[in-house]
Amino acid sequence: MGTVTAPTRSRLPPEARRSQLLDLGVRLLATRSLDELSVDLLAEEAGISRGLLYHYFGNKHDFREAVVRRAADDLIAQTAPPPGGDPLERLHASLAAYVDYVLANFEGYVSLLKGSAGGSEAVRAIYEEVRGVLSERIFTEDPDGEFIADTPHNRLVVRGWSALTEELVITWGTDRRAGRATVTREELLEVITGALPALVRPPSAG
Amino acid sequence: MGTVTAPTRSRLPPEARRSQLLDLGVRLLATRSLDELSVDLLAEEAGISRGLLYHYFGNKHDFREAVVRRAADDLIAQTAPPPGGDPLERLHASLAAYVDYVLANFEGYVSLLKGSAGGSEAVRAIYEEVRGVLSERIFTEDPDGEFIADTPHNRLVVRGWSALTEELVITWGTDRRAGRATVTREELLEVITGALPALVRPPSAG
Repeated sequence: MGTVTAPTRSRLPPEARRSQLLDLGVRLLATRSLDELSVDLLAEEAGISRGLLYHYFGNKHDFREAVVRRAADDLIAQTAPPPGGDPLERLHASLAAYVDYVLANFEGYVSLLKGSAGGSEAVRAIYEEVRGVLSERIFTEDPDGEFIADTPHNRLVVRGWSALTEELVITWGTDRRAGRATVTREELLEVITGALPALVRPPSAG
Repeated sequence: MGTVTAPTRSRLPPEARRSQLLDLGVRLLATRSLDELSVDLLAEEAGISRGLLYHYFGNKHDFREAVVRRAADDLIAQTAPPPGGDPLERLHASLAAYVDYVLANFEGYVSLLKGSAGGSEAVRAIYEEVRGVLSERIFTEDPDGEFIADTPHNRLVVRGWSALTEELVITWGTDRRAGRATVTREELLEVITGALPALVRPPSAG
């Protein structure tokens, strides 16, 4: 392996190399909490020195923040709804991607949620930003308000629905990993997809 | 004041005195986070020595845990639904008491929510217990499942609804205290009360 990857690495420009290290950091987060993601671990997994890592990421906190930022960007990209079609089907597709993302990045995602409350300011800010982007998407993807009218009432409801979705996906993921999930992935998706139209007021009611 | 309260205090049996101190701790939590609730502060507010406080509460952590436990008991007691009548009206009354409790204990409650994720194990356990009691009540108050059938699907939904309710009450409370609430207390109650029947499956659908 070393003879194959080492030359490739050395030819990468610094930004590409940094990006590659961030991807590795995100992959490590799938099975580790944010606190467990250390510079030592990444250096070992990447087969490079700690000093070189510090060259790319100023310090331990900047490194963790950069990995969380990358994970957040991945989440936002992967959950982009398909370009056209029935609003409920687009929401279902986006939520399916969200459920799969959370499952694939479970340890890190759960530690981010916990950290979002008790963790560092920077990580909390990224978490809030992601929530904001995902919630805002409900309205920007429906500019004419045909599915969900952009009203103060519905904005509050969408915020509550986001919390509900997060809670259910985490609960279901925890149960599933412990072999005690009581509903299937499709049933979970049906619940969280159907919850939004069940909660918002129809456009006519403003 | 001193001449009135001092003799009263000295006549109180230790358990009653401890209970009185816990009530004071809960009142202090209304305008302070859990981290700000120190033994020094309580001693000052109660007009007694730190040493005496440590006599009642072994150490700083035991003291905070006891105050949170008391606050949790208060919340559970105050949100007990009225004994009979229409299920939705009983739910509305219980949620109205919950909203008022959160508003009256805002700083402490929000810090408990944040602490529930990042805080001490003991405080997190109390938070989880309260959530469990409040959720379980949905089913125990409706033993025949006439309003909400006790199914795995509905248990998952109630868990999500709890997260939605918590998020909306905290968001609304924060906005209200900042003078930028976009809906009234009654509208908020309408949203969170109506959300539950909108989300669960009717008893016939199991």
